[in-house]
Amino acid sequence: MIDIALYGAGRIGKIHAGNLASQPGVRLKYIVDVDANAARELASRHNAQAAADAQQPLADASVQAVVIATSTDTHADMILAAAKARKAIFCEKPVDLAVARARACVDAVAAAKVPCLIGFQRRYDPTFAALKKRLDAGEVGDPEMLIITSRDPGAPPIAYIERSGGIFKDMLIHDFDVCRWILGDEAAVVFATGSTLTDPKIQAAGDIDSTAVTIRTKRGRLCQINTSRRAAYGYDQRFEILGSKGLLQAGNHKPTEVVAQTAQAVSQDLPEHFFLERYRQAYAIEMAHFAKMITEGASPKTGIEDGLKALELAEAAATSLKSGKPVEM
Amino acid sequence: MIDIALYGAGRIGKIHAGNLASQPGVRLKYIVDVDANAARELASRHNAQAAADAQQPLADASVQAVVIATSTDTHADMILAAAKARKAIFCEKPVDLAVARARACVDAVAAAKVPCLIGFQRRYDPTFAALKKRLDAGEVGDPEMLIITSRDPGAPPIAYIERSGGIFKDMLIHDFDVCRWILGDEAAVVFATGSTLTDPKIQAAGDIDSTAVTIRTKRGRLCQINTSRRAAYGYDQRFEILGSKGLLQAGNHKPTEVVAQTAQAVSQDLPEHFFLERYRQAYAIEMAHFAKMITEGASPKTGIEDGLKALELAEAAATSLKSGKPVEM
Amino acid sequence: MIDIALYGAGRIGKIHAGNLASQPGVRLKYIVDVDANAARELASRHNAQAAADAQQPLADASVQAVVIATSTDTHADMILAAAKARKAIFCEKPVDLAVARARACVDAVAAAKVPCLIGFQRRYDPTFAALKKRLDAGEVGDPEMLIITSRDPGAPPIAYIERSGGIFKDMLIHDFDVCRWILGDEAAVVFATGSTLTDPKIQAAGDIDSTAVTIRTKRGRLCQINTSRRAAYGYDQRFEILGSKGLLQAGNHKPTEVVAQTAQAVSQDLPEHFFLERYRQAYAIEMAHFAKMITEGASPKTGIEDGLKALELAEAAATSLKSGKPVEM
Amino acid sequence: MIDIALYGAGRIGKIHAGNLASQPGVRLKYIVDVDANAARELASRHNAQAAADAQQPLADASVQAVVIATSTDTHADMILAAAKARKAIFCEKPVDLAVARARACVDAVAAAKVPCLIGFQRRYDPTFAALKKRLDAGEVGDPEMLIITSRDPGAPPIAYIERSGGIFKDMLIHDFDVCRWILGDEAAVVFATGSTLTDPKIQAAGDIDSTAVTIRTKRGRLCQINTSRRAAYGYDQRFEILGSKGLLQAGNHKPTEVVAQTAQAVSQDLPEHFFLERYRQAYAIEMAHFAKMITEGASPKTGIEDGLKALELAEAAATSLKSGKPVEM
Repeated sequence: MIDIALYGAGRIGKIHAGNLASQPGVRLKYIVDVDANAARELASRHNAQAAADAQQPLADASVQAVVIATSTDTHADMILAAAKARKAIFCEKPVDLAVARARACVDAVAAAKVPCLIGFQRRYDPTFAALKKRLDAGEVGDPEMLIITSRDPGAPPIAYIERSGGIFKDMLIHDFDVCRWILGDEAAVVFATGSTLTDPKIQAAGDIDSTAVTIRTKRGRLCQINTSRRAAYGYDQRFEILGSKGLLQAGNHKPTEVVAQTAQAVSQDLPEHFFLERYRQAYAIEMAHFAKMITEGASPKTGIEDGLKALELAEAAATSLKSGKPVEM
Repeated sequence: MIDIALYGAGRIGKIHAGNLASQPGVRLKYIVDVDANAARELASRHNAQAAADAQQPLADASVQAVVIATSTDTHADMILAAAKARKAIFCEKPVDLAVARARACVDAVAAAKVPCLIGFQRRYDPTFAALKKRLDAGEVGDPEMLIITSRDPGAPPIAYIERSGGIFKDMLIHDFDVCRWILGDEAAVVFATGSTLTDPKIQAAGDIDSTAVTIRTKRGRLCQINTSRRAAYGYDQRFEILGSKGLLQAGNHKPTEVVAQTAQAVSQDLPEHFFLERYRQAYAIEMAHFAKMITEGASPKTGIEDGLKALELAEAAATSLKSGKPVEM
Repeated sequence: MIDIALYGAGRIGKIHAGNLASQPGVRLKYIVDVDANAARELASRHNAQAAADAQQPLADASVQAVVIATSTDTHADMILAAAKARKAIFCEKPVDLAVARARACVDAVAAAKVPCLIGFQRRYDPTFAALKKRLDAGEVGDPEMLIITSRDPGAPPIAYIERSGGIFKDMLIHDFDVCRWILGDEAAVVFATGSTLTDPKIQAAGDIDSTAVTIRTKRGRLCQINTSRRAAYGYDQRFEILGSKGLLQAGNHKPTEVVAQTAQAVSQDLPEHFFLERYRQAYAIEMAHFAKMITEGASPKTGIEDGLKALELAEAAATSLKSGKPVEM
Repeated sequence: MIDIALYGAGRIGKIHAGNLASQPGVRLKYIVDVDANAARELASRHNAQAAADAQQPLADASVQAVVIATSTDTHADMILAAAKARKAIFCEKPVDLAVARARACVDAVAAAKVPCLIGFQRRYDPTFAALKKRLDAGEVGDPEMLIITSRDPGAPPIAYIERSGGIFKDMLIHDFDVCRWILGDEAAVVFATGSTLTDPKIQAAGDIDSTAVTIRTKRGRLCQINTSRRAAYGYDQRFEILGSKGLLQAGNHKPTEVVAQTAQAVSQDLPEHFFLERYRQAYAIEMAHFAKMITEGASPKTGIEDGLKALELAEAAATSLKSGKPVEM
């Protein structure tokens, strides 16, 4: 039985705690949070102990892995500390908002030779993973063009946006990872444009809410990403990859398969509301993969280099938006 | 913490054990199975004890509820014994293959005043339950006509069919329950016809593999049920209810939302393969409901009378098939 | 150039006139209608002449074919007269409301050796015809079970219903034809039940508005037909055939392929409203087939025997409904 | 009855001739083509006369309108000549490959005060037009982001590509028109990138086969267009517009509504194969609109200024591709 410490008892921390609980061979020993009550409550639900001090689990030799689900600004410090303590690492995206810091984390993880998984949960989603498997099996030939639609049901509070690092690092970081994963190639050029269309406060906060990004890869493959902070109909998470022999599309998931036909229309359910619902299975599979990494030595499917590369694309997109010009990678 | 005993460590027993494990306020104390190894193995996975003797859990005053997931021929005896011991009861369908025996169980449960839930899991399925809720809310007006499509991916072994009580009691028992539940009315007339089209051995075993059943209710509502033991494309579980103001349809669930477009066709996933996959969520919600019954006193949504009524419809259908005439209820 | 006379300048007559106009090798010479104005108006639109007397076109040797689109009660007399005059015949369904009269028509057509097409336009519909072609090509193996959903958007006026011959001869006659066509087998047993659920005046007129019909064929294939005079969402024309190797479904047609996703639902267009819209292409293809029959000698795809057989099924269904018992054919 | 002359008896000319034939109030008098046989054949089919000399119809005072469906390099000359002769003009897209020439045509048409319709047939497509109507009615609020997917089933011959003016003027000209029409705003910035992925001969011909274009409008609305010369599954013509209150999507049209479910997959028809099938209705509605322009004085829905504006966008895209930089309009 391998002991694990969870940092962060918030929304996503609770998801991870629940998923860790059902993994064979691992045990949630510590839960750490700046909010002691939150830590205690979650700990009691999972027979774990709330740790007052973030160092305590790192100092505990029985703890072999940490799950970092704290706020973004703490990720890099936590990764560096965990690597130093030779713990296996699961860390939520992004590694950091600064590329240089993220690179330092990559180096530290490499030097410590600890396994490290970055929480790009979309790669573990049953629909996305099945599509990727079929693509790799050659069902639609060589990948040529990827269209990603990525829209949130509504913008987060302005206070969140102000510290988010901007829409590219906060929201599109996932899409950049999907782009690299699906196209199987690295970006050569990134062009980003965008607008603030939903709420002028977002502009006042120095950010935008609607973006259109184009990536051309080294082999000439093309990717277009369209995102919005607000889709009135809910969380819209689709992509499609055109290959030389056909097209593979990943559609939204619906809560039920009810169809209503009335005098007005033929209608179906809206997409599952937001990421906690949409990626419920993905989070579970992701954590099972992390458990396998630490119990069986499996390689991370989404390593810390992937975290760095996605961040570099986000940085390039932000630069392109500001300059109005494409950025060569 | 309420202790529960599970009878049956087979395929469905394992599902129930897993679902019981995640219910707050209850604890799986005993697992009983004629196969002692199976009982031991499942018990060890859930920190329960394997009981050698079926009477032991009934005699244990700490046990307040039993889950009966043994073979059909043992259901009635188990219900009678559990009722006598004043345990809350969960029992898989059917209550029994004989209407008289099922009626005796209804009486015993009533006399003992114990809560009893029959495992018509379809009523707990998210799609079916959402449809029912919208129907009850009047979205499509008064229910008029119900079409049920219920097809298995393939026939069970002949040995199973021989002891199954026939297709109406084994397979359509669920559809009869759906009919009563959705139409909100009792059958006045039942007409059933059918054929053996997939395997002559089924006919030799005294059964059929394809049926077409029609029910007219007391208020004149109509129901058609079509079933087959073999749908080459998988488990087909759909129904649609025509109301005075529209139509509600419950469609199949798919494993993923991938769409492939190639030179041949635009294609989607086959339906989830069989009942363990298709009703995975339904089984979990059903068990959560049972837990609520015993911890909070909730009323059973699918009571033992429902088990009896569905059986009576199955019996009538069998009689109709044999006589070639409609049967009045 | 072959001259044709059209009897009936009503709704469906106009459709046929328009379709005849675009067939090569044929010319609409006469239009006959009890309403002289209607005949004149339609004739002028198509450079034809309005005939005051129904006999005139039959007496005109240049006329080699007649299209009968008059009211049902005139069909048999018109067929008999046209057969006697040795004209090729297109006649709308039903041949007649009385089986004996329809049989007399079959005999007269056979004796006169004139080609005769009965207007079961559904067989010419692109979706239905493509399904049949794929079924015949063995794509889903042997046909086993056919489910037909056939619902009108609303009931016709009571005055129409009173003279309609009842729902089975008026509305289900098409479904009985589809049953024979798709299953490729003749009925052995017919069971019909039904109710009046939409308007008590229909019951007062001696008819019903909702029916559930079951047919078992000589080879044991099964068919269920569900029909209603009122589907609040429009004209619902679907069927599906289960075969030994899969399922083929024919879905409704929509006016456009617009999908709207709003805060309420994901919605699509209602089905095309009624038969004139839904079967617009079918009527055109049907008339092209009739033109081919008379210009090139093609065999009728829907002959007068098909008209008789469908009527016999309708008669059997009516008898079953009245008696409450299945009818053997 | 208004006489019309048709220039061009090729593939699209034949479509226009057929559609003109069924318009009330107009008559096809002349058909002109450099291939005299083609002109004669088409003329004989529609009771028109083949004109040997392109000037003859222009000199004929009874001719009030011309339909120009000749090769692209003749469009501008034809428009100038027709404007001079004061004929109403229908001209296929593009007006010309050179922006200056197109502008001269706009000026000539304005000076002559003749009605002029450019054949952007997509605006007349039932699905696209219904979407636009619902958008204008406010169903999804203010338009924010438009995603256009526009893929051909296969590349034309290299000889065609060499004279086509490049993918932006030949293929995306339609998409640029859709962009302006749906977003209701003019482009401020255009960025285009692309690759040759399907056939190196296309690159040798100085063109590309895959493009990703981004447009930001003056009001900050965003548009992404993805196109390919080759979609193995057929002609893919979709777009979706995100508005402040929801999403409207225009999907592909299918030949039939057959769904097949076999052991392999649940599958539907491929999209209608290419533009002649997909836009069959659009061409008919477009020509009816042109007839209405000349018989009733209706305003062109797609005027010559639209032709010019789309061409300017195509020119900008080509410039952007070459320079690797966005182009400001």
